[in-house]
Amino acid sequence: MIERRQTRPVMVGGVAVGGGAAITVQSMTNTDTRDAAATLAQIARLAEAGCEIVRVAIPHADALASFGAICSESPLPVVADIHFDHRLAIEATRLGAAKLRINPGNIGSTDRVDAVIEAAGEAGIPVRIGVNAGSLAAEYEDRDWPLAEKLVASAVSFCEHISARGFEDLVVSAKASSVNATVDAYRKLALSVPYPLHIGVTEAGTSLSGTVKSSVGLGILLAEGVGDTLRVSLTADPAEEVTVAWEILAALDIRRRGPELVSCPTCGRCEVDMVPIAQEVERRLRLMRTPVKVAVMGCAVNGPGEARDADVGIASGKGVGLLFRKGEVIRKVPEAEIVEALMAEVEALDREITDAE
Amino acid sequence: MIERRQTRPVMVGGVAVGGGAAITVQSMTNTDTRDAAATLAQIARLAEAGCEIVRVAIPHADALASFGAICSESPLPVVADIHFDHRLAIEATRLGAAKLRINPGNIGSTDRVDAVIEAAGEAGIPVRIGVNAGSLAAEYEDRDWPLAEKLVASAVSFCEHISARGFEDLVVSAKASSVNATVDAYRKLALSVPYPLHIGVTEAGTSLSGTVKSSVGLGILLAEGVGDTLRVSLTADPAEEVTVAWEILAALDIRRRGPELVSCPTCGRCEVDMVPIAQEVERRLRLMRTPVKVAVMGCAVNGPGEARDADVGIASGKGVGLLFRKGEVIRKVPEAEIVEALMAEVEALDREITDAE
Repeated sequence: MIERRQTRPVMVGGVAVGGGAAITVQSMTNTDTRDAAATLAQIARLAEAGCEIVRVAIPHADALASFGAICSESPLPVVADIHFDHRLAIEATRLGAAKLRINPGNIGSTDRVDAVIEAAGEAGIPVRIGVNAGSLAAEYEDRDWPLAEKLVASAVSFCEHISARGFEDLVVSAKASSVNATVDAYRKLALSVPYPLHIGVTEAGTSLSGTVKSSVGLGILLAEGVGDTLRVSLTADPAEEVTVAWEILAALDIRRRGPELVSCPTCGRCEVDMVPIAQEVERRLRLMRTPVKVAVMGCAVNGPGEARDADVGIASGKGVGLLFRKGEVIRKVPEAEIVEALMAEVEALDREITDAE
Repeated sequence: MIERRQTRPVMVGGVAVGGGAAITVQSMTNTDTRDAAATLAQIARLAEAGCEIVRVAIPHADALASFGAICSESPLPVVADIHFDHRLAIEATRLGAAKLRINPGNIGSTDRVDAVIEAAGEAGIPVRIGVNAGSLAAEYEDRDWPLAEKLVASAVSFCEHISARGFEDLVVSAKASSVNATVDAYRKLALSVPYPLHIGVTEAGTSLSGTVKSSVGLGILLAEGVGDTLRVSLTADPAEEVTVAWEILAALDIRRRGPELVSCPTCGRCEVDMVPIAQEVERRLRLMRTPVKVAVMGCAVNGPGEARDADVGIASGKGVGLLFRKGEVIRKVPEAEIVEALMAEVEALDREITDAE
């Protein structure tokens, strides 16, 4: 339904980004990169949560040896995130990085950039030009322009320089902590460069406000067909970022990882204790991977309609629930048995779908 | 920055909806309406969280007496939510309801609708025509149309009937549990009726998925200037709905209730324990009402830039934080004192702003 912007694809390890490939979910480790075991353990958890590309910072040269070990053993392609010291980026290309991320604002002079690009070209890996409102190059920061225009001008000028040297395996990002500035910047970028866009609202905040800002900003962009890979930034466990990213993709029916749960907010009309029922169903659904649609509804107003529309649904009345499967009422179950009865049907459907694959 | 669609305003008690009025936040009680004390206690909590209009279901006639008591004592205007039995709606207009919400799908025959509208007219209160995918009238449900078109056709036909009888104090909603269908429906509604729109994604799910679906769907609409009042539906404590609604409005810089927190996701570069610091700052900021911007940043890449851009900010280094106020570095503080030092500055600023008002 959403018409995606056409971009020039790149490969990040075995994962395609852009050119019509599935929109991928990224995150970034927040362990000490020098601790390869801790970083690999976090990458394993991120992969389990649905992360498809992982970024790892190389703050100093003492993280390089560990970075190499991480690249060798990571189940996900690893992006090296480098600021300030371009030599770390060059080293990273030789240690198994699947992609580099550099920032025009702090990578330094043109010949340093050129040396990084040359190393990426030799390694055959793409480079993300990642501009950030918090670290704009001084020549842009000082202009009296709207933030979005400064971000885009910085990114585009960097891309043009690199493209003129014959390197085209680029991905671009331009993030701000303001949703409006971020959306504006990406809309302009989408019209200005042919490269895939890595979208994200940066420094979005803690779980709640970061989830809302990311959902609003990335939701607007994705609905307009802008964005080839996304990263949700939360001041929280990075696995939460992955869960939220998937929820955003699912909300727009772009990609879905596992079941969908439709559940009502309950009101004065509800005659069963719905919230714990919905929470328990949600918890159990998280363990499944088939895209079944499940409805948990509290009353007779919208309950039968939504329950009928789902693959498996329950519409509750006074202390009981009507169990639906594929639009048909199967039976009436007492309140205490709603979760088990619903999940038995969902699991049966899950097995049917899994067996058919 | 966002150009809002022009609508014909209505008054819900003392709260204007539409016609350029501030976009208001609604929620709905999920207590038993027959229990006036419990319902009023929940309304007080919702008001404290920032709710501006509250909806209360009247499922049966035995809730009417209590509904009257709730209307008399509620600090917020109360909307009566009625399905199936139009006589309850008529009674509600006489008991102090500030607005009615009825659903074309289940209010019944035209003469019943007309009786409700006549009563609302006598009471001088507006009526929301609230169409819902889970309870479409059969004549629309059975059509082979996209869901959004069925929702809009049902709402528009109802509005036209009521308007033809000279009643124009309408608010309209058309909700689905699908974000895409909801967005489509409201875009079409915005072109089809002159009335304020109450926007929401219905049966959006539990806290996480409901927050994401509501943020994506309502974010897209609000960014397009569509929506005069909003309700986030979560299978959770209704006070959470209010918090999320405000976060959505704040994300787009439409309205803000209290401070904004910019905080980074941390990475391998971070040398202080940022997540608990950011969480504690967020917790304390929730108690304030002035719209100060606070940044809690973990490293030297984007830290100084974001901290400088905030009213008060901290950019952390190894075991220390640089404290900024209004773009200037004030001093360096040890990690253990970051929260107190930052909050002392924020609270001083809060007092200055409050005193100046």
